[in-house]
Amino acid sequence: MRAAAERTTEERPAASRDDALEALADLVRDDLEACNRLIVARMQSPVELIPRVAAHIVAAGGKRLRPMLTLAAARLCGYRGERHVKLAACVEFIHTATLLHDDVVDESALRRGLASANAVFGNKASVLVGDFLFSRSFELMVEDGALPVLAILSRASATIAEGEVLQLVTQNDIATTEARYLEVIRGKTAALFAAAARIGAVVAGRDAADEAALEAFGMNLGLAFQLADDVLDYDADQAKLGKTIGDDFREGKVTLPVLLAFAAGDESERAFWRRTIEDHEQGANDLGTALALMRRHGALAETLRRAGAFGAAAKAALERFAASPERQALMDVVDFAIRRGR
Amino acid sequence: MRAAAERTTEERPAASRDDALEALADLVRDDLEACNRLIVARMQSPVELIPRVAAHIVAAGGKRLRPMLTLAAARLCGYRGERHVKLAACVEFIHTATLLHDDVVDESALRRGLASANAVFGNKASVLVGDFLFSRSFELMVEDGALPVLAILSRASATIAEGEVLQLVTQNDIATTEARYLEVIRGKTAALFAAAARIGAVVAGRDAADEAALEAFGMNLGLAFQLADDVLDYDADQAKLGKTIGDDFREGKVTLPVLLAFAAGDESERAFWRRTIEDHEQGANDLGTALALMRRHGALAETLRRAGAFGAAAKAALERFAASPERQALMDVVDFAIRRGR
Repeated sequence: MRAAAERTTEERPAASRDDALEALADLVRDDLEACNRLIVARMQSPVELIPRVAAHIVAAGGKRLRPMLTLAAARLCGYRGERHVKLAACVEFIHTATLLHDDVVDESALRRGLASANAVFGNKASVLVGDFLFSRSFELMVEDGALPVLAILSRASATIAEGEVLQLVTQNDIATTEARYLEVIRGKTAALFAAAARIGAVVAGRDAADEAALEAFGMNLGLAFQLADDVLDYDADQAKLGKTIGDDFREGKVTLPVLLAFAAGDESERAFWRRTIEDHEQGANDLGTALALMRRHGALAETLRRAGAFGAAAKAALERFAASPERQALMDVVDFAIRRGR
Repeated sequence: MRAAAERTTEERPAASRDDALEALADLVRDDLEACNRLIVARMQSPVELIPRVAAHIVAAGGKRLRPMLTLAAARLCGYRGERHVKLAACVEFIHTATLLHDDVVDESALRRGLASANAVFGNKASVLVGDFLFSRSFELMVEDGALPVLAILSRASATIAEGEVLQLVTQNDIATTEARYLEVIRGKTAALFAAAARIGAVVAGRDAADEAALEAFGMNLGLAFQLADDVLDYDADQAKLGKTIGDDFREGKVTLPVLLAFAAGDESERAFWRRTIEDHEQGANDLGTALALMRRHGALAETLRRAGAFGAAAKAALERFAASPERQALMDVVDFAIRRGR
C-alpha cells in the first residue's frame, strides 16, 4: 500500500500536468503579456542596480502563477476592464520581494535553477531591492485607487512576514506540530495565493460570498502547492525543477515529510532526525538515509495525499461559479500545483 | 578662519539644543503618548518573536523625531482630530523597518548605543520583522483610508530604498560627486522627513501650496539632519550619541566630510583616501589620520555649514504659516538636528 502510495506521483502522464499551466496561461495570454510589460516598466529606477537585480529574478523563469490567479479570477467573475492587469503586477511584485528576502534568509545559492540574486549581487542589494519592489507594489495599488485591494494585500504582506518568522522559529525544531507547520505555510505561501485570487472578485465588484470563495480557493491551492513543494525538495527531477534536492534537509527545515517520518519512526530513527535536523549535524550519507526513512513510512506519499485534500477543497470552492473555461483552467491548475516536477 | 569655523558647533549652549527637542515633544505630548501606545499595540503578533524584535528597536531610545513632525505639522495646520496619531505611527513603523534593514545591510553591531537587533536576533529576524512592520504600516494607512497619504508614504518608501541602493553603489567610491551624494541622503533620510511633515498638511485638508511648504521643510530638515549625522560619525561625544565613532570610515562609506577632504587634499592625501575608502585597507591609526585631514581642510565645519544652509531653507519654508508655538518648535528643532551630539 505504501509502495503504491509512493507511486501516486506517476499516475498522470507529464504532458497533462504541464498542459494545465499552459492552458491557464493561454486563457489569460493578452492580459499576462500586458502584466509582464507593466512589471518591466515599473521595476525601472534611475538607480540602475535596481532594475538589474529585479530583472535577474523577474526574468529567472517564474511561472507567474500568482498574477495568473488574479487575471483568471477577475475574468471568471465577468470582469471586462483592465485594472486586473495592474493588480496582478502588484501581486507579482510582492512575490518577487519576498523571494529576494527569502533567499537572503535561507542563504540560498540557487533560485529556479539559476544563481540567486543574493549570490550574484549580495545580500545587501537583495534586501534593498526587495524593499523597493514592495514599495513599488503599494504605489501601483494606490494608482489603482481601491482601498479594499490595498487592505487585502497589506494584510497578506503582514501575514507572509509572520509566516516567515514562524518558520524561522520552528526551523530545526523537530517537535513542531503539524498544526503549527500548517500555520507557517498558510502565512509564507498560501496567504498570497488567497489574496491574489480574492482581488479578482474585488475588481469585478462581486459580493462578499464570491470574494470568500475565491479566497478559499487560493488558500487551499497555496497549501497544496507548498506541501507538494516540500515533497519536491526530496523527490524532484532536479533538472526539471531547477532546484537542488535536499535544500530543506541541509537547512534543517522541518517540513511535513520530516514531521511525518519523525512521528512514525522508532527511537533510533528519531535519534537520526534529532541529530540531523535539531542539532544540524549532517554527514555525506544522511540525505540518502532521510529519503529511505521517508519512503519506509510513506511520508512523501502521505504529504502528497494531504496536498490532494487541500486541492480538492480548492476545487470545491469554485463550484459556486458557473462552468467556464476560466473555472476549468483554475481547477486544472490545482492538479498542476500538486503534480509538477514529477 | 578654519579654526573658527570648526567652532561653530560651540556657538550655542548645550541646554538650548536639548531644549528644542524637549519643547517639541512637550507641545505634542498627549498625541505622542497616544502614538507610542498605538505603536506598541500594533507591533503585536501571535508570532511572539515579532514584538520581541520590534520592542528591542522601538524601545531603544529613539527620539520619535519623524512622528513628531507629523503630529506638530498637523497641529500647525489647525488640525483638531485624531487621525494624525495613526499616521505618525505609520511613519515610525516605516522608519523602524528601514532601521532593521539598514543594520543588516551595514552589518552594524550597535544602534543608539545598544546592541542592534541583528546582533541580538540575527539578520534573518531583522529582515523579516522589518517586512512585517512595513506591511503593518500600510495596514494602518488603509484603516485611516486616505489615498493621498498612501500615495505619499508608498512613494517615500520606494525613494528610501532607491537612496539606500544608491548608497550601496557609491560606497567605497571616492569619485562620488557631491550632487550624487546629496541624492543618496535625499532618498535614504530626507524623503521620510518630507513625507512625515507633508501628511500633517494632508490630514488637515490644507491646499497644495501648504503641502509643498511642509514637504520642503521636511526635505531640507532631513538633509541638514543627515549631514550633521555624517559629521557626528567623526566628531560626536560617543557616550552622548550612543554610536561608535568612525563607523562610516570603517565601512568605507563616502560621506560629505570625506568627499570634501578628498577634494581639498594633495596627492599623498588622496592616496590615503583611496587606500582607506576605495581599497578598504585600514590600519589602527588611519581613523586618527582621517580626522586630522578633515580638520586640516575644515571638512567637518564645511559640512556643518551646508547643513546650516539646508536648515535655513527648512525654516524659510515655514514662514508662510502664521506664527504659533508649533511653528516655533519646528523651527527650533532644525537647530537641534544640526547641533545635537555636540
